[in-house]
Amino acid sequence: MSDAPDSPTPATIGPRELEGTIDLLGVIAYGAIKGFTSIAADAEMARDLDLKRALAGMAAKEFRGHELLVDHIGELGGTPTEAMEPFREAFDAYHDRTRPRDLLEGLVKAYIGDGIASDFYLETAQYVRPGTAAIIQQATADHRDVDVIVAAVRRGIEADSRRAGPLALWGRRLMGEALTQGQVVASRRETLGDLVLGRSHDRPGATIEEIGELMQRLTDQHQVRMRRLGLAP
Amino acid sequence: MSDAPDSPTPATIGPRELEGTIDLLGVIAYGAIKGFTSIAADAEMARDLDLKRALAGMAAKEFRGHELLVDHIGELGGTPTEAMEPFREAFDAYHDRTRPRDLLEGLVKAYIGDGIASDFYLETAQYVRPGTAAIIQQATADHRDVDVIVAAVRRGIEADSRRAGPLALWGRRLMGEALTQGQVVASRRETLGDLVLGRSHDRPGATIEEIGELMQRLTDQHQVRMRRLGLAP
Repeated sequence: MSDAPDSPTPATIGPRELEGTIDLLGVIAYGAIKGFTSIAADAEMARDLDLKRALAGMAAKEFRGHELLVDHIGELGGTPTEAMEPFREAFDAYHDRTRPRDLLEGLVKAYIGDGIASDFYLETAQYVRPGTAAIIQQATADHRDVDVIVAAVRRGIEADSRRAGPLALWGRRLMGEALTQGQVVASRRETLGDLVLGRSHDRPGATIEEIGELMQRLTDQHQVRMRRLGLAP
Repeated sequence: MSDAPDSPTPATIGPRELEGTIDLLGVIAYGAIKGFTSIAADAEMARDLDLKRALAGMAAKEFRGHELLVDHIGELGGTPTEAMEPFREAFDAYHDRTRPRDLLEGLVKAYIGDGIASDFYLETAQYVRPGTAAIIQQATADHRDVDVIVAAVRRGIEADSRRAGPLALWGRRLMGEALTQGQVVASRRETLGDLVLGRSHDRPGATIEEIGELMQRLTDQHQVRMRRLGLAP
């Protein structure tokens, strides 16, 4: 079916690789717009005006990332809303199950949840064509200005040390929920697995061993972030 | 006190006009960041993905407007968070008293509330120096892409005509609350009134008659918007 699948131009991507690529972009684009509303809700909760402004800025960057991804779906001939639709349930479930009860929980979620998602997207970017990989990197790397969040969480724990334990549990729960919903996403669309494993085209994909290493890197990065917040990983 | 108050460069604005100008920018900048979180919350409520994306885009534009205003406060030698602080209570009260109970109420609020505020800011822009007026126009005009909101409200009323009456009341209440809080803002800082009335510098300001005409234009525009939504004004 595929005509010259090694070419980086969309017109020559085989149909199965194209489908997987659009699916992947749909996942990340829907994740970004949910990230936007989630961080905007944190901005609403923030009393401190500098923190409110920083969070609103991060949300706006998430939206810019969403727009980049949506534009790229269009360039590849996909329909953005159709590309996002199959993944809404899993993302909505993640956000419904991890609704922050206050600003501190929201900040930990913005940092930990967004961090896991970004790491995962950057890892998968290795397995797509260069043009798409560049878009994913741009959309993801743009909102990693997280020092303000880290400082605000540390201040919150300093002000009330009893929060450290529950927030550490919260951070671990976020990781668990993200992994659960990640598996739901992967199982729903085998095109995504095929893309990463190299089954939809003739470039080499990830081996099972490499997938294991990827999961280990995600876990390691998560623990680095937890420690940076001053929380037991 | 003022040294060459006719010059458009900040360095030559008299201190009282400068104070009024920074106050006005503080009002609009805080209004914009509250507008951002309010419209982002509507985006979160929207199930329809095209509407969700349109609302998120409007919120992002509100934030861009906020950034423009904040940058200009800095250029004039002001501290953005200090400039916004005196007006938080009034804006927070407006938003607390008009918290939408569902998406339709949120959409009417985004259109009606944002419309009243934008009209008012554009009217006051006449009474400030050209550089500042241009920033206010840019920050305000940018997010007037409201066709999507109007269409969604009309669809909502078509789908359930019993909502038209309560939504019309809601629209009138928004206007009332906006006027109430507008008066709170004006009474809190006499620098703002002085700026509009031309008391802080030697350019002519608004006459009492012109203020009356301005209020009439705000009311007329509000009624145009209500009718556009299909609501009795």
